[in-house]
Amino acid sequence: MSLVVINKIDEIREIIKEYKKQGKSIALVPTMGCLHEGHKSLMEKAHSIADITVISVFVNPIQFCPGEDYDRYPRTLEQDKIVAESAGVDIIFAPSVNEMYPNLQKFSDLTMVVPPYELTDIMCGKSRVGHFDGVETVVTKLFNIVQPDFACFGMKDIQQLFLIKKMVKDLNIPVEIIDCPLVREESGLALSSRNKYLSETEKTDALTISKSLFAIKESFKIGIKYTKKLFDVCLTNLSKNVELEYLEFVDADTFKHTDTINSKTICAIAARVGNVRLIDNIILEV
Amino acid sequence: MSLVVINKIDEIREIIKEYKKQGKSIALVPTMGCLHEGHKSLMEKAHSIADITVISVFVNPIQFCPGEDYDRYPRTLEQDKIVAESAGVDIIFAPSVNEMYPNLQKFSDLTMVVPPYELTDIMCGKSRVGHFDGVETVVTKLFNIVQPDFACFGMKDIQQLFLIKKMVKDLNIPVEIIDCPLVREESGLALSSRNKYLSETEKTDALTISKSLFAIKESFKIGIKYTKKLFDVCLTNLSKNVELEYLEFVDADTFKHTDTINSKTICAIAARVGNVRLIDNIILEV
Repeated sequence: MSLVVINKIDEIREIIKEYKKQGKSIALVPTMGCLHEGHKSLMEKAHSIADITVISVFVNPIQFCPGEDYDRYPRTLEQDKIVAESAGVDIIFAPSVNEMYPNLQKFSDLTMVVPPYELTDIMCGKSRVGHFDGVETVVTKLFNIVQPDFACFGMKDIQQLFLIKKMVKDLNIPVEIIDCPLVREESGLALSSRNKYLSETEKTDALTISKSLFAIKESFKIGIKYTKKLFDVCLTNLSKNVELEYLEFVDADTFKHTDTINSKTICAIAARVGNVRLIDNIILEV
Repeated sequence: MSLVVINKIDEIREIIKEYKKQGKSIALVPTMGCLHEGHKSLMEKAHSIADITVISVFVNPIQFCPGEDYDRYPRTLEQDKIVAESAGVDIIFAPSVNEMYPNLQKFSDLTMVVPPYELTDIMCGKSRVGHFDGVETVVTKLFNIVQPDFACFGMKDIQQLFLIKKMVKDLNIPVEIIDCPLVREESGLALSSRNKYLSETEKTDALTISKSLFAIKESFKIGIKYTKKLFDVCLTNLSKNVELEYLEFVDADTFKHTDTINSKTICAIAARVGNVRLIDNIILEV
């Protein structure tokens, strides 16, 4: 079967209905397009577990905060088709903004899906106020439109992954969420559509983000478990041109802060290199 | 087929899955139990449009505000079974609080579905802060558990009906919402589970609520279209023992306030008789 691109909700509903009738299982990979090897690993995972692989390509305005890069976010659908096809994708769902939010005057006119405050007042949620409301709302919409059996999310957006899993559990959404590992360049840099914004010198600075996480992991391996010490390890390794937004240590099961490393701690970072905001994380497994 | 009562989410999911396989359509009537003729009309409607009628009976704690009647809300499952069976219901889904909200410490730990602020800062939403967040969240959960083709809601809870329809549209929920008319006693009193709380004298006072709405409709029919005038008509008819919470005139299509009656205006009232909060409404069709 060859790849099809669908723009209309009614049209994809019809196609999905037909597949469901045939008893086929469906996996969804929600994306904002500008697909890279990280997305490819998600799509390949989806393809390996379900009969039909659907990806959505939609730059979702309601998850961008004022002043963020909504307008300049890269839109590369033609290139995305090639990547998707090579990963075994059957359907790209690429709706317009008006198809997803018809006649929307302002975001506050919408019914929203909102994660618990305590879990968004940390890490990315703290600086990107309302971001995860926008993410959960669009993901709920996509789930309701595509009705997948599985949905694949990357561990690079680790707070997003945690919140989506909590949403699925809290709202009894009939979909199984599949965690997919973060993918790095050989240099260590976590893959991101926003890496496109980086100049060559900025990329060199950006590399110190993953370098500082690896250093933290090494320090932890030799016995340093106090997070304040590990914070210093990060600062020592981070380029002076990298502006740290946060370095946080949270428990993988609860996403609550932890002062000392225990069973499973996630060490997550957000930082700016020039105008580009990047995130990365590492799991400090005992 | 005779009525079954199911308490577990996994169990009802299995049953529904089997019906879906057989190509049967499903209608859901979400209730908090204490079923009366109003509910019966919803269940009969559901029974008339779908192969399988499911009702939920669940007194949803997260839609009650502090100080409201959650604890004393009537729970009458044995009686409800008789009413449901007589209305052609196939399945009662009656989960425990822990089944719906496992190990919940506090409401703010939950992912919530939240209607737009502008539509909840009026009428019942204004005094019952957070009420509609609780309603939309539990209805979303029930939709995800039962996956009905249709869901029937009564027009007595007119703001709830409007918000649920908006939610379904905004979140692309694959269910068709069926409006069902408000049902009244012969006396005019709108049927409500909370009528059970009323003493005989309170019931006499309560009757002036519907009486005042009918008077407004009569005044409108003879040409009074200015809502301030119609407000006075209400006050003239309302018993002195009835404490008015609100009388609001909103447009049926937008739920925005209207100063003069136009195409379709809803006139909605909430009032207290003793400790009992009652609501009612009437549509002033041109």
